[in-house]
Amino acid sequence: MKEISNLLGYRESIRVVDATLRDGGLVNDFYFTDEFAKKLYLTNLKAGVDYMEVGYKASKEIFDIEKFGKWKFCDDDAIFDVLGEGKEGLKLAAMADVGRCDYKTDIRPASESPLSMIRVATYVNTIPGAVEMIEDAKKKGYEVTCNIMAVSNAQESDIKVALDMIGQSSVDVIYIVDSFGSLYPEQIARIAALYGEFAAKYNKALGIHTHNNQQLALANTIEAVGDDVDWLDATYYGMGRGAGNCSMENLLGFLRNPKYNIFPALQFVQNYMVPLRESGTVWGYDMQYLMTGLLNQHPRTAIEYTKQGRRDFVEFYKEIVAQD
Amino acid sequence: MKEISNLLGYRESIRVVDATLRDGGLVNDFYFTDEFAKKLYLTNLKAGVDYMEVGYKASKEIFDIEKFGKWKFCDDDAIFDVLGEGKEGLKLAAMADVGRCDYKTDIRPASESPLSMIRVATYVNTIPGAVEMIEDAKKKGYEVTCNIMAVSNAQESDIKVALDMIGQSSVDVIYIVDSFGSLYPEQIARIAALYGEFAAKYNKALGIHTHNNQQLALANTIEAVGDDVDWLDATYYGMGRGAGNCSMENLLGFLRNPKYNIFPALQFVQNYMVPLRESGTVWGYDMQYLMTGLLNQHPRTAIEYTKQGRRDFVEFYKEIVAQD
Repeated sequence: MKEISNLLGYRESIRVVDATLRDGGLVNDFYFTDEFAKKLYLTNLKAGVDYMEVGYKASKEIFDIEKFGKWKFCDDDAIFDVLGEGKEGLKLAAMADVGRCDYKTDIRPASESPLSMIRVATYVNTIPGAVEMIEDAKKKGYEVTCNIMAVSNAQESDIKVALDMIGQSSVDVIYIVDSFGSLYPEQIARIAALYGEFAAKYNKALGIHTHNNQQLALANTIEAVGDDVDWLDATYYGMGRGAGNCSMENLLGFLRNPKYNIFPALQFVQNYMVPLRESGTVWGYDMQYLMTGLLNQHPRTAIEYTKQGRRDFVEFYKEIVAQD
Repeated sequence: MKEISNLLGYRESIRVVDATLRDGGLVNDFYFTDEFAKKLYLTNLKAGVDYMEVGYKASKEIFDIEKFGKWKFCDDDAIFDVLGEGKEGLKLAAMADVGRCDYKTDIRPASESPLSMIRVATYVNTIPGAVEMIEDAKKKGYEVTCNIMAVSNAQESDIKVALDMIGQSSVDVIYIVDSFGSLYPEQIARIAALYGEFAAKYNKALGIHTHNNQQLALANTIEAVGDDVDWLDATYYGMGRGAGNCSMENLLGFLRNPKYNIFPALQFVQNYMVPLRESGTVWGYDMQYLMTGLLNQHPRTAIEYTKQGRRDFVEFYKEIVAQD
């Protein structure tokens, strides 16, 4: 039994990251109103959340700026207009995908940006590109995380090589990412132990980002806390791609550090997240996501099923079981 | 890390108990159609489920038979009419509450009943009554479980006395019951360790029954599997009081014994559970249940909030925080 996550105490090194605009943006093409973003920012401040991930630094060559809201691109000036400086109390972060970000031009020095942190997202097979982006961001003065996606589909020997390369970089935090929502807490424990070896060797912190395909997003996050993972991603009302993420209100209810406060989170969910869902924006646990999670598949088929308004999940299951 | 619940193997001693008619009956006053019950029975048979709990043996002195469906009372003849014998392959069980069951008259010898198992439900402070019912049922030829409810609100020293008394009875299985859905997996591990001491001393099996207030019903059940708990309760689509239970389709997806089969469960959810919910029967994870779970309170206030169709959960939170 884990003593480290003693339920009555807490660990000072825990950091909570709100990823609502970023992972939630994948659901509504990043079309959040400025009022929503501002109120989210103020909610995070009151709730004691440590970082707010505001979106992607996506390439405007690859993605059409007419087809996405501003949080897909996170221009410094656009962030500044809506959220202001953001460097006191609540720090701002943006995600940059390997191969889908013109980081050399689009990421300015940190001293000229409201952002404090760049989160480099990579698959196991694009680590050299990730390392180049990590060093670029670090040189520009940012805190940097590296989020290794789809870990449930990677070979352990490949992950070890990747962790060794990332460990030697100047990254601050290495993230475990259960992109498909297919992992069980016991697997999180084993993965955290593996990541932990490299984190200890290279003096890095660890983070976790979960999906709720099997209703295990909170459970896997809690498991990780007990395994010495400090950086915890969550989104309000669990808003995120497909089955969504660990919900902020669940996570704040679990954490015992008195700096965290669930009440502003409840207010934000009532006043902004429930209306957003009722306006027709769809995310969260459902049968089609359970199925792709169980089969350790990318949720894209389930997202398409959802978009089409299909209800015949038994047929859907037959379809995805037949895929190979 | 737990080796015992090795994800690629399985433990032969695991038993899956479908509690849909019983815990789900608390949501619709046990008014299930005969067709629903029959199809549920056939689904359980195909899915490899070991036991089907069909309802309560409730006192007709205390409860008005005009106000509840037949599964509240589980007359042997009524069960027989709908489900038949039920002793081959899939065994039938019913719950009997201490103080709310006329067991001396209403529970006939097992040889005259379609039921194979009586589940005695008790609070920590009514153990002597539970032991009397356990011995009565055992003498009549049933397998017997003892489900100690609301364990999250009981003193550990009281639980130890209770476990010692139950251990000395002829009960077969002792259940951990997280009635309020307030427990975290780490607490389940500690409770399972405590129950395990007495189970080992008195040669009893352990079971678990969870609620989904914090979206941890599956996670807590999985945790218990890793802690040598063998008897696992689940309900289709998670149907049960308040936030509902560990969902059968989630659990069957996790278990690796090839005798269990998720596909009939998916069919039943699509054909019966989704329509049941769409007809206006309400259960499942929602903000008001998260709140009572976090505060380790009985969900009755949240159930009332739900019945009234209230949506102002921030106000509700203020109300229940002020209760003392």
